[in-house]
Amino acid sequence: MNPSLSNAYDQLDTPFLLIDKPKMMANIQRVQESIESLGAKLRPHFKTTRTLGVAPYLLPQLDSPVTVSTLAEAEALAILGYTNMIYAVGISLGKLPRVKQLLEKGVRLRVLLDSLEQAAMLNGYCSENQNSMSCLIEVNCDGHRGGLSPNDEKLLEVAQCLHLGAAHFEGVLTHAGESYECSTQEALREAAANEVLVARQVAKQLEQAGVPCPIVSIGSTPTALSYTDLTGITEVRAGVYTLFDLVMAGIGVCQISDIAASVVATVIGHNSEQGWVIVDAGWMALSSDRGTSTQANDCGYGLVTDRNGTLIENVSVVNVNQEHGMLGGINGAAIDFQQFPIGSRLHILPNHACAMTAMHQYYHVFDDASGTYEVWSRIQGW
Amino acid sequence: MNPSLSNAYDQLDTPFLLIDKPKMMANIQRVQESIESLGAKLRPHFKTTRTLGVAPYLLPQLDSPVTVSTLAEAEALAILGYTNMIYAVGISLGKLPRVKQLLEKGVRLRVLLDSLEQAAMLNGYCSENQNSMSCLIEVNCDGHRGGLSPNDEKLLEVAQCLHLGAAHFEGVLTHAGESYECSTQEALREAAANEVLVARQVAKQLEQAGVPCPIVSIGSTPTALSYTDLTGITEVRAGVYTLFDLVMAGIGVCQISDIAASVVATVIGHNSEQGWVIVDAGWMALSSDRGTSTQANDCGYGLVTDRNGTLIENVSVVNVNQEHGMLGGINGAAIDFQQFPIGSRLHILPNHACAMTAMHQYYHVFDDASGTYEVWSRIQGW
Repeated sequence: MNPSLSNAYDQLDTPFLLIDKPKMMANIQRVQESIESLGAKLRPHFKTTRTLGVAPYLLPQLDSPVTVSTLAEAEALAILGYTNMIYAVGISLGKLPRVKQLLEKGVRLRVLLDSLEQAAMLNGYCSENQNSMSCLIEVNCDGHRGGLSPNDEKLLEVAQCLHLGAAHFEGVLTHAGESYECSTQEALREAAANEVLVARQVAKQLEQAGVPCPIVSIGSTPTALSYTDLTGITEVRAGVYTLFDLVMAGIGVCQISDIAASVVATVIGHNSEQGWVIVDAGWMALSSDRGTSTQANDCGYGLVTDRNGTLIENVSVVNVNQEHGMLGGINGAAIDFQQFPIGSRLHILPNHACAMTAMHQYYHVFDDASGTYEVWSRIQGW
Repeated sequence: MNPSLSNAYDQLDTPFLLIDKPKMMANIQRVQESIESLGAKLRPHFKTTRTLGVAPYLLPQLDSPVTVSTLAEAEALAILGYTNMIYAVGISLGKLPRVKQLLEKGVRLRVLLDSLEQAAMLNGYCSENQNSMSCLIEVNCDGHRGGLSPNDEKLLEVAQCLHLGAAHFEGVLTHAGESYECSTQEALREAAANEVLVARQVAKQLEQAGVPCPIVSIGSTPTALSYTDLTGITEVRAGVYTLFDLVMAGIGVCQISDIAASVVATVIGHNSEQGWVIVDAGWMALSSDRGTSTQANDCGYGLVTDRNGTLIENVSVVNVNQEHGMLGGINGAAIDFQQFPIGSRLHILPNHACAMTAMHQYYHVFDDASGTYEVWSRIQGW
């Protein structure tokens, strides 16, 4: 660690969330360049970090495209002057007054829907309020969440209902949920190609039926680096690549050394009967995410590095309580307690970066290269 | 719902955390009375709720015993004037300045440890700062977390090191971690009796060796209602009983209808291919806790009630993304979409109440009986 940062690092009480800024910057640049080289725009998902601290790097211009998972994120970004957003969770009536306020501030916020009920509700609200809200239809490219199937005849019905109604239809959005289960580069390329194909076809069908479809939005971090042709796709959304995590390393879209977020914890005990090192970071700091449990390498509740970020082999967080993490050997490997003195610090890498950051109000951002330390606060709630 | 509360309920944006105050009050009273009827004190664990809103009910006097899982909780309670605390996570050097500040404010805060290294560190800090910090030794009654084994000769060594050193040794603490895996009343009674036996014996051994042991602290919510004799035990700690949850219902210490916390969500879609109802509450609102996964009745990421709190049979949250929850039939039961109109509201019960509340900055507290609505804010961080 840069000596000028050691003081800040040492003074912080554990557990705390550490972001390795140079790693984060490299992740941002890598995905940005990959998508732009194929002629599409990247619309980063803000849900992974939810901090205005990252905005200058992730969203260099005020009209940089951004995806949000909550109106709270949209409202915070609007304060900084950002204007080009998609709210990528199905809309309900109760949220429209806040959407309206954002539109009145000049934010181009598109909402998402996938049913006639929502389309009628949105048209009705727009008529009553004499405004026009932009929206996208969610298309289900692989059966993994919401969205209308590409062959569902309701798709055209909903699009026409919006196109002819008081709302403003802007296009289609799909998310390759299945790609999170991929484990080979070939499977990733297939998932990526399927996403492109479905979105492109649906947009074409709508255009042919007389419904203009200027936005064709696809994306997921697993597929973000596996596109070969983005013809007909206007933008790609991805989020977790900002920090990357063990699930993404397991899928094969990053190396463990690319992971830019970790929780710093202190060793508070040794359980020699169980062979556990006990640290002061439980699920309250790490989250309960077990995303690697279905992968070839189950990382428990996270893998462990020393304070310099060097991976400690054959050790994972095998169990967690609220404020306790139990580190044990992987596949029965023995723990050498002398490697983990009581009072020493360890870093725990996330299974899922979005879930780990969600447990922290503040992120402690260290830049070893420039010797700077920053505290970024998280946008909370909905 | 009390008509005077409907307006507040309807105006809140989903997802939000709802606390049913009369249920919470009944849970608090039930456990309090049970422990006091056996002649011990209850030292409620504040970690489940972490809100000063609950303090008047959970801690009626300023010297009411309380357990905290973070110094942040202790500091917040100290502002209200509470003075009688145990910080029940193993102590490390970095945290002692904040402990010292609390002691200087008149808070009797005991710290916890289970090693000679920590005992020497604490004695050293007390000597240097010319003060005396109270502490307890954690004893491992069933191998499930930290703590020294009752037969470990280090136990007396650590106690004597503290007793003779600058720190102030006050007693022993144990936690029946194994009780969370119980599924019968008999198993609970055994776990409870084992906890009592271990703590009582250890305290006796220390006293016989000339180390006074005025605090003998045991507890867990599963065992809290299964003690028959608390002779020799000065206090019982428990937390999750305040709100109860599906894990506790699975263990058999409460009914599902006793659960006082839920997340209110809106139906935002139907996935007819998968048979899913999609709501706007994912792991960000519910947590990723899968505590019922190893129980006889796996509740997925939570069970579902209607807006009046009536359980909807054979439905659970089968999957979650960050802001999406997928409701499906249990054991292949079909979903009747007409029962879940788009735009309608549902309540999702927690697997683990501590984990669900941890995802929320504010709790919305409804009292149907008195017609009152309050907002309680959560103490955040460490």
